[in-house]
Amino acid sequence: MTQDPLVIFTPSGKRGRFAVGTPVLTAARQLGVDLDSVCGGRGICSKCQITPSYGDFPKHGVNVAEGALSDWNSVEQRYDDKRGLKQGRRLGCQATVQGDIVIDVPAESQVHKQVVRKAASARVIEMDPATRLYFVEVDEPDMHEPTGDLERLERALKEQWEITEIDIDFSVLSQLQTVLRKGKWQVTVALNTLAENARPRVIAAWPGLHETGHFGLAVDLGSTTIAAHLTHLETGEVITSSGIMNPQIRFGEDLMSRVSYAMMNPGGDVEMTRAVREAIDTLTTDIAEEAEIDPSLILETVFVCNPVMHHLLLGIDPVQLGQAPFALATSEPLNLSATELGLSALPAAARIYILPCIAGHVGADAAAVALSEEPNKSDDLVLIVDVGTNAEILLGDTSHVLACSSPTGPAFEGAQISSGQRAAPGAIEAIRIDPVSKTPRFKVIGCDLWSDDDGFWEQTAQTGVTGICGSGIIEAVAEMRIAGLVDSSGLIGSAEQTGTTRCEAEGRTHVYLIHDGSADGGPRITVTQQDIREIQLAKSALYAGARLLMDKRKADKVDRIELAGAFGAHISPLHAMVLGMIPDVPLDKVQSAGNAAGTGARIALCNMAARRDVERLVREITKVETAIEPRFQEHFVAASAIPHATDTFPELSKLVALPQVSFNTGGGDEDAGGGRRRRRRRG
Amino acid sequence: MTQDPLVIFTPSGKRGRFAVGTPVLTAARQLGVDLDSVCGGRGICSKCQITPSYGDFPKHGVNVAEGALSDWNSVEQRYDDKRGLKQGRRLGCQATVQGDIVIDVPAESQVHKQVVRKAASARVIEMDPATRLYFVEVDEPDMHEPTGDLERLERALKEQWEITEIDIDFSVLSQLQTVLRKGKWQVTVALNTLAENARPRVIAAWPGLHETGHFGLAVDLGSTTIAAHLTHLETGEVITSSGIMNPQIRFGEDLMSRVSYAMMNPGGDVEMTRAVREAIDTLTTDIAEEAEIDPSLILETVFVCNPVMHHLLLGIDPVQLGQAPFALATSEPLNLSATELGLSALPAAARIYILPCIAGHVGADAAAVALSEEPNKSDDLVLIVDVGTNAEILLGDTSHVLACSSPTGPAFEGAQISSGQRAAPGAIEAIRIDPVSKTPRFKVIGCDLWSDDDGFWEQTAQTGVTGICGSGIIEAVAEMRIAGLVDSSGLIGSAEQTGTTRCEAEGRTHVYLIHDGSADGGPRITVTQQDIREIQLAKSALYAGARLLMDKRKADKVDRIELAGAFGAHISPLHAMVLGMIPDVPLDKVQSAGNAAGTGARIALCNMAARRDVERLVREITKVETAIEPRFQEHFVAASAIPHATDTFPELSKLVALPQVSFNTGGGDEDAGGGRRRRRRRG
Repeated sequence: MTQDPLVIFTPSGKRGRFAVGTPVLTAARQLGVDLDSVCGGRGICSKCQITPSYGDFPKHGVNVAEGALSDWNSVEQRYDDKRGLKQGRRLGCQATVQGDIVIDVPAESQVHKQVVRKAASARVIEMDPATRLYFVEVDEPDMHEPTGDLERLERALKEQWEITEIDIDFSVLSQLQTVLRKGKWQVTVALNTLAENARPRVIAAWPGLHETGHFGLAVDLGSTTIAAHLTHLETGEVITSSGIMNPQIRFGEDLMSRVSYAMMNPGGDVEMTRAVREAIDTLTTDIAEEAEIDPSLILETVFVCNPVMHHLLLGIDPVQLGQAPFALATSEPLNLSATELGLSALPAAARIYILPCIAGHVGADAAAVALSEEPNKSDDLVLIVDVGTNAEILLGDTSHVLACSSPTGPAFEGAQISSGQRAAPGAIEAIRIDPVSKTPRFKVIGCDLWSDDDGFWEQTAQTGVTGICGSGIIEAVAEMRIAGLVDSSGLIGSAEQTGTTRCEAEGRTHVYLIHDGSADGGPRITVTQQDIREIQLAKSALYAGARLLMDKRKADKVDRIELAGAFGAHISPLHAMVLGMIPDVPLDKVQSAGNAAGTGARIALCNMAARRDVERLVREITKVETAIEPRFQEHFVAASAIPHATDTFPELSKLVALPQVSFNTGGGDEDAGGGRRRRRRRG
Repeated sequence: MTQDPLVIFTPSGKRGRFAVGTPVLTAARQLGVDLDSVCGGRGICSKCQITPSYGDFPKHGVNVAEGALSDWNSVEQRYDDKRGLKQGRRLGCQATVQGDIVIDVPAESQVHKQVVRKAASARVIEMDPATRLYFVEVDEPDMHEPTGDLERLERALKEQWEITEIDIDFSVLSQLQTVLRKGKWQVTVALNTLAENARPRVIAAWPGLHETGHFGLAVDLGSTTIAAHLTHLETGEVITSSGIMNPQIRFGEDLMSRVSYAMMNPGGDVEMTRAVREAIDTLTTDIAEEAEIDPSLILETVFVCNPVMHHLLLGIDPVQLGQAPFALATSEPLNLSATELGLSALPAAARIYILPCIAGHVGADAAAVALSEEPNKSDDLVLIVDVGTNAEILLGDTSHVLACSSPTGPAFEGAQISSGQRAAPGAIEAIRIDPVSKTPRFKVIGCDLWSDDDGFWEQTAQTGVTGICGSGIIEAVAEMRIAGLVDSSGLIGSAEQTGTTRCEAEGRTHVYLIHDGSADGGPRITVTQQDIREIQLAKSALYAGARLLMDKRKADKVDRIELAGAFGAHISPLHAMVLGMIPDVPLDKVQSAGNAAGTGARIALCNMAARRDVERLVREITKVETAIEPRFQEHFVAASAIPHATDTFPELSKLVALPQVSFNTGGGDEDAGGGRRRRRRRG
């Protein structure tokens, strides 16, 4: 008995016997091989390219001869003439099985192709987008059997793709007749499917075969900036990234002041909602223009944001987030249309997905960090810190994940620091103080040189040296501690105590002079006693939050630390540890997670299963509310010193010896960073 | 062994034994007795009122004593003090079972109460609305367990009503926090459920117990007028009916000219869509004001309309409906939100239901007629005719229903008639011609007297006699035929031939003078030869459509005829039959169906099962397209005479003898109403 030819697909290894003449695409579908096709086997979309791999089947001992596939045909020739097929490639819908063969499915022909993320961890995003394109040929209307165009489209999807029970966005329905006639009854529809058992929804339709693809926006909606990544939803490739300032800044720099604005001004929340939506419209238009695509091709958008931005984006008054018990309107993931969300630069039918919030202070941005960094899949105990006005803190491993938010205030962002400023050209971002001469040298944003390098002053003549940004102030305080200019309680010593005239008296306390630009009309950049108190408050809050989670987890140490966000990317782990911002770990166990929230947004944009993952993870995370935990207060007060207790930082002691100095003279500043001003900063 | 008390509910007859102390509401629920409750048994909504019925259980021989229910309690007393309970009523949630008892559920306490329709057929509408209200008590937020307000509402609905997996309209979500706090964590939510297995959707939320009910609009969106019935969605009562002119008239009187407007003017369809939506907004606001309710309480709206209005309402260019093959964008029923449909007077979350269309010329209005008149439930063969610019014709019985549309043109509406006008005060609506003197007498709209009655001219001095409306022209032509002024071919005789100077020569044909108001500056109202030709065209089309369906059904007669619509209500069956508009049946078998389309809309508004019924019926109806049926042309040409062949009108012959006259002199008008101008009137 002659057997049907054996077909083996690589890389899946799936195999089966098929009758001579079976198209490769058909064989692939029957075996569940991941081989793409938009046109459904009509030889026009070219998504189903395969590479026949001739050779031995060692297990079967059969030498596959030429002729195991049907001959190159006219459809393939036409496609090759028109667009070019790579050497050795065939169209899976045209080539038919003639004999035993191994067939390779190249990565770009796989639906669930994996895309390497351009990030430190080099993790891959598997493509599993909610929206996919389908090409169909629709019957023309016929008076003998009167049916609507939509019903004939439904019939075509059923017959040609086995897709039944679709919905259609109303904005697409209103254009359907025009599109069908323009495409001469051939149409490509974009179907969005929110869950496996959900009804697919037609959210776009193009005449004929649509070949320019469809796109998605991953938006990290921050209090200060809104960043978006325009992503190709078939390849996962980030086409363009762009950002814009959050125009809500004019209603308040930090979140709490925006909540206050909404409380004090009737309709203030509506104003802020309008502002942020307009900004997103602008950003959408700009990014599409930059990428030279039509914004109507942006069919999906994912948002990650903190709870206040979440509510303001949605048009929900954030006032409840400004007062205990900090109740969210909803913490659930949201699926909306662009119309519902009042976004007008996107097509009306575009789908919006907003990640779930973890709790009233731990938002969808923290959920995105969790999705990206996957503490729930970590074998060792990882602490993930995303520092902003609030620090979101995640702690966990495969067994269990906890989350909290800690009210660090804006000091780490350079706010409430006397010479502080946002991270911008001219801002001091790194600093070193010579332990002997007590002289500082520093780097500013926009210049790669240190201030004592040749050419530094020429290169920075344009921007000047204007202030200290977040990472700069952390290094400054830590370096001052290492150089013995500050004692463990956070007091700056006098010129006499420290042996440098850079420590100047200012009232009853001292300041340390980093740079005096006053001769050239520039600022005198100093670190004041008050600056150090602000940093102590912030770092104590951060440490107390991390420590509280460790208590809950009954862990007295963590295995590794990830610093997320722009701040996390610029912070020096050593200096952070000198300050006592983060628990003690070996220095090589502290890593930057990059823009983890943005990455999480991109993952959710490209992969439906990831949305389910993060939704499940968010439900399972133990939410810890620092405001009602007495232990948080205890940790907070105890963590004021720099660092608070050397015996809890054994790893740090191996790296740097901190001088045993004390500048407390019994007068002046005695508040060593206590909690009395902390409350008002929530937000 | 002592048995638990036996509880019997009337009128359902459901019965069961329940432990002493079981609340009556609980017993009713367990038995599936139709007993309403919004507050879920808290004694505040009063929906669960019952009447204990003390007496014998003949089958059991037990005499039920006083005390078979628990004593009147303080909750009932408070409710009675506050709002008053009818004598003998108890609250089903408060009264508990103490012994064997019969309990009557009054009609107003039934969820599926039946509401008698104020119409000829006195059919009842069973209440089974898509939207129902639920009162719940929601947990307050708690920092120890951070959940969103929505999640706590979901939990409450699950715990208190066993309702799971809800959706929430975005516009309600954005107000949820305010509503919950205003109601002190008590809230009434309106849940809309589109099908048994569909997720209920929160479409409104009110603080505390919402007691003013919720409403629906049944809208009959016609080419000329838009009529709406504001309906209480708990009782089914029509609170207010109101109408407004369709402002699209300025783009074209009839549908075809509106389609032309869209074809000739880029953006014309958008203009017309805006106009009709604005008119609906105005009508909504007006009707709510008249009924003294807040428009935000109108949670559902049902539309019925012809296909062109259907597309223009939806914002779909109707151009395809103006040319063969007359393809609809969709014929499916549509469920939309007020926002999607661009209606701004309704709450954003209000649900819109648009009945399915039957075919390109047989719209959702015809579907509504079918729902109201139920030809599919008729034992005898019924012909239902809804006359407008197109006549929609349904023919069927329990075995099978057919439908078609026939291009009657606007003559039946008084258009294209020389003295024709819309039905309005001053328009002749009825006419009788003395067979001997050939003198007419008539009635005009706005006056109950005939023109030869005393006081007629005084009473009509205000309006004057201004023209002839649709029912008037039908009677005029039929009366002219009966009086021997017109022969069976439709020719008007000369003064000599007819013996009356009212038959005047006009060019090569004659006209009949009905009323000469020229002495008082009024019009000379005549019926011209051309008028009769227009009526012949229209009636031939109507008859041919009916006849075509009868052919398809292999029926040479129908058992009864229903005339639907405003026109159908005013038409004289005898005169219609003299004209040969409708097939021959005994006169008492011709009935007006009243505003059947509007009634169908109300039924769909009040009853979800009816929506499923009409959707199924529409799928099952045999759609006949007159334009491609050669038999239609044959019938059309053959039906030109008045009536076309006396042997097909035996019932008519019993009622009136039509003179055997012939005015054909071989010259002049020979076109006896042929089809040459018919095509252009489609629409």
